[in-house]
Amino acid sequence: MSEKITADHLEGFLGNRRLMEQLAFILEVEKLKTILRRTLLLDRSRVETDAEHTWQLALMAAVLAEHSSEPIDLLRVLKMLLIHDVVEIDAGDTFAYDAVARASQAERELLAADRIFALLPADQAAEFRALWDEFEEKRTSDARFANAMDRFQPLLHNFFTEGGTWHTAGVTEPDVVRRMEPIAIASGTLGDLTERLIALAVEQGFLAPRAEAEPRA
Amino acid sequence: MSEKITADHLEGFLGNRRLMEQLAFILEVEKLKTILRRTLLLDRSRVETDAEHTWQLALMAAVLAEHSSEPIDLLRVLKMLLIHDVVEIDAGDTFAYDAVARASQAERELLAADRIFALLPADQAAEFRALWDEFEEKRTSDARFANAMDRFQPLLHNFFTEGGTWHTAGVTEPDVVRRMEPIAIASGTLGDLTERLIALAVEQGFLAPRAEAEPRA
Ligand SMILES: [Ca+2]
Repeated sequence: MSEKITADHLEGFLGNRRLMEQLAFILEVEKLKTILRRTLLLDRSRVETDAEHTWQLALMAAVLAEHSSEPIDLLRVLKMLLIHDVVEIDAGDTFAYDAVARASQAERELLAADRIFALLPADQAAEFRALWDEFEEKRTSDARFANAMDRFQPLLHNFFTEGGTWHTAGVTEPDVVRRMEPIAIASGTLGDLTERLIALAVEQGFLAPRAEAEPRA
Repeated sequence: MSEKITADHLEGFLGNRRLMEQLAFILEVEKLKTILRRTLLLDRSRVETDAEHTWQLALMAAVLAEHSSEPIDLLRVLKMLLIHDVVEIDAGDTFAYDAVARASQAERELLAADRIFALLPADQAAEFRALWDEFEEKRTSDARFANAMDRFQPLLHNFFTEGGTWHTAGVTEPDVVRRMEPIAIASGTLGDLTERLIALAVEQGFLAPRAEAEPRA
């Protein structure tokens, strides 16, 4: 964080410690606008930022909530989504299909969560950190639905940009099927659509089928 | 919208009319990632997109809700914020301090709202359109708080980038004071902070004071 925008510094000239801690957090996580993802915009003009991705997931959750197989609390889902990627400010965006980077990802993200949520007043730090842990653990219906949005959005973008990041060397249909499993767990309807989109992507050459040399499991 | 991504087209190969209408809306409003605002990122590397701005307002509402002077329903505030700028896909971002563009803004935005929300299934089209109208009319506590976020965010960015869009020719302290009025209406605490930030901005030369020639009203 810029040295200028700590709660200590802000409190010195603006007062109100609690509000300054909230501002310090808000102004720190603003950096999500500078973290680039691999996902292309639908017009293919560039890749999206983490902030843009996050907005889209929240909007999708609001529009698609009815498709959750289990009851969800949409307010909790939205709060969870709004902060789910803030750890990438320190840890960076880890490409979903990069096994090497993913190995060290969890540790880097935990350190980031420790630092970033602690900027908030203690009660809110605890609330948002718990929501982030819940998202990561995927053990509640709210977390499962939020995770489904996080998988479904890049799927849509890859499909409607005729492949997008699926053209990365080595990504094949079984990788995508595995990566998209959380969608069907959270929503039968969206799971069916996902299956159909993956099949169509292979059919239309947007996604490489299982490599010939690979044994069929 | 790209001809490929209408509900009619999607229904043809994916079925499920209701879900396809929801997808058509989601994929249409994704264009908020391509609409540029005047507000600089805090690192001053570029201006923000409407999608990024929208995410930040939603996050701010979640963190700052306790400062609302009246009770608010945070879920309604978040839904309202998530869609408050989608009309800019057709109508463009109108600079807050451009009186000429603002004169035709309301009409352009109404046409955009008519087109864009109608992409959704009828019940959701009605729900989100009503939330958009409510935001515009500023007559409920939820709308007042959402509008306060929409004013407070560029204020923060202009202050912490040492002026930002306030350096645009002709913008002076009274313009900014007037523009920021909705903040104090929604939140005494944030209204006080706004007043202090504006005074400091003038003191530090980030914002031009009232022009000498202008009569003091
Ligand atoms: Ca994500």
